[in-house]
Amino acid sequence: MADPWQQCMDYAVTLARKAGEVVREALKEEISIMVKSSPADLVTVTDQKVEKMIISSIKEKYPSHSFIGEESVAAGEGSTLTDNPTWIIDPIDGTTNFVHRFPFVAVSIGFVVNKKIEFGVVYSCVEEKMYTGRKGKGAFCNGQKLRVSGQEDITKSLLVTEMGSNREPETLKIVLSNMERLLSIPVHGIRAVGTAAVNMCLVATGGADAYYEMGIHCWDMAGAGIIITEAGGVLLDVSGGPFDLMSRRIIAASSRAIGERIAKELQIIPLQRDDATN
Amino acid sequence: MADPWQQCMDYAVTLARKAGEVVREALKEEISIMVKSSPADLVTVTDQKVEKMIISSIKEKYPSHSFIGEESVAAGEGSTLTDNPTWIIDPIDGTTNFVHRFPFVAVSIGFVVNKKIEFGVVYSCVEEKMYTGRKGKGAFCNGQKLRVSGQEDITKSLLVTEMGSNREPETLKIVLSNMERLLSIPVHGIRAVGTAAVNMCLVATGGADAYYEMGIHCWDMAGAGIIITEAGGVLLDVSGGPFDLMSRRIIAASSRAIGERIAKELQIIPLQRDDATN
Repeated sequence: MADPWQQCMDYAVTLARKAGEVVREALKEEISIMVKSSPADLVTVTDQKVEKMIISSIKEKYPSHSFIGEESVAAGEGSTLTDNPTWIIDPIDGTTNFVHRFPFVAVSIGFVVNKKIEFGVVYSCVEEKMYTGRKGKGAFCNGQKLRVSGQEDITKSLLVTEMGSNREPETLKIVLSNMERLLSIPVHGIRAVGTAAVNMCLVATGGADAYYEMGIHCWDMAGAGIIITEAGGVLLDVSGGPFDLMSRRIIAASSRAIGERIAKELQIIPLQRDDATN
Repeated sequence: MADPWQQCMDYAVTLARKAGEVVREALKEEISIMVKSSPADLVTVTDQKVEKMIISSIKEKYPSHSFIGEESVAAGEGSTLTDNPTWIIDPIDGTTNFVHRFPFVAVSIGFVVNKKIEFGVVYSCVEEKMYTGRKGKGAFCNGQKLRVSGQEDITKSLLVTEMGSNREPETLKIVLSNMERLLSIPVHGIRAVGTAAVNMCLVATGGADAYYEMGIHCWDMAGAGIIITEAGGVLLDVSGGPFDLMSRRIIAASSRAIGERIAKELQIIPLQRDDATN
């Protein structure tokens, strides 16, 4: 039987590459910045333009499909995940990096059917690295098969995470005390390149052993999530339980042992789910 | 008058490229790890081999010159800086990254005469980016002239730093509370790619607005230090006073205003100087 979603995935790769070109061109011009939820939560016209370009292209080809896009949600559209084939899009993952021309900026496209991720595409467009993952068929970067490190010993691990854009004192305290607890185990180190999608892809390559974060969104995780699992990694909730795409929290690890060990150290930040109805 | 040190600089570029090839080759093989000052302070045979290769090559050509190399000092050699032309070498800046194949690993060579940095070469060898800076002649990456962002407003800045390899609870507390204070100003964000030299070069490109760290060594700073100043940036001590190459602490900023603003927030970690005699 032919893969029913392969054509969609090929199209996602084409669109991500095209979007990446737009982002690279925009990096050569002056970038004007708007502020969203906090002084550290930024958006630009390029985020909005790229998302519109991706969604309108897909809608034309697949009019019955659904969409959850970072900037559409910011503009008031809902983000409830149904069983319908759904494209989950972050036009620029790492907008703060984009604004500063810090060289890690990704276009992220995840495709979910019956609430399960079928494929993911993450294009790190300054590095020109195209990461892909298709359920049951492996994960690749520029055609090269990816494999997580498989590390099980937390004291030999390198972690990736972010300090996030929330600047409320209580949240910041938890973010930093979680880092302190993990560093004290000890781990080899913690890195932060400024985009959830690229951080997760670095775990998929084996370059880091685990990524965790709270406060991100489904569009930060959907594309890279399946790239991690197809590279042999595991996705967990920060409690150590099953991963939930709409929960705004994740541990993505090279082994269940490392993921569960991290979960033990994490103090939870209270968050409103992506699919909360208010 | 011809530049008396240009020949040395050309040689440094050649050696850094050759060393980078050795590092890239080593990344394809199994890497065995030894521990230095803490469970997170690592070294490999490649660090030692590359340093020996660089120093023996230079000694042959410039027998009267002096050397300070990370692995030579670890093996018991002194690190007192004299007025003699001195090559300051980190064969692998980012050894933990190297061990994990996290893709930021640099060969760093600084050249100091009369205690002033004359030139610096930082080769980020996985990215294949050759950064150079020559006193009075500008800074470049793969031939392209570098310019810092010039940002003066800390609330619009992106910072780079590291959590370091020291796992003593008191030190870790200061490292993280310094990050907390800076994030609360607020700044746009903090990134950490795992090598001082590459972090500093990212400031030189304008991709980040400042780097600060305590606990690093002269070999982490000598190469990239002049790359920053030649790109229009400033080096300061973490107190806000003049930068001291042997002090193990630095703020490297795109403007004096940002550098001094960071200094105001930093709690100082007590450190033994690189040139301390015990």
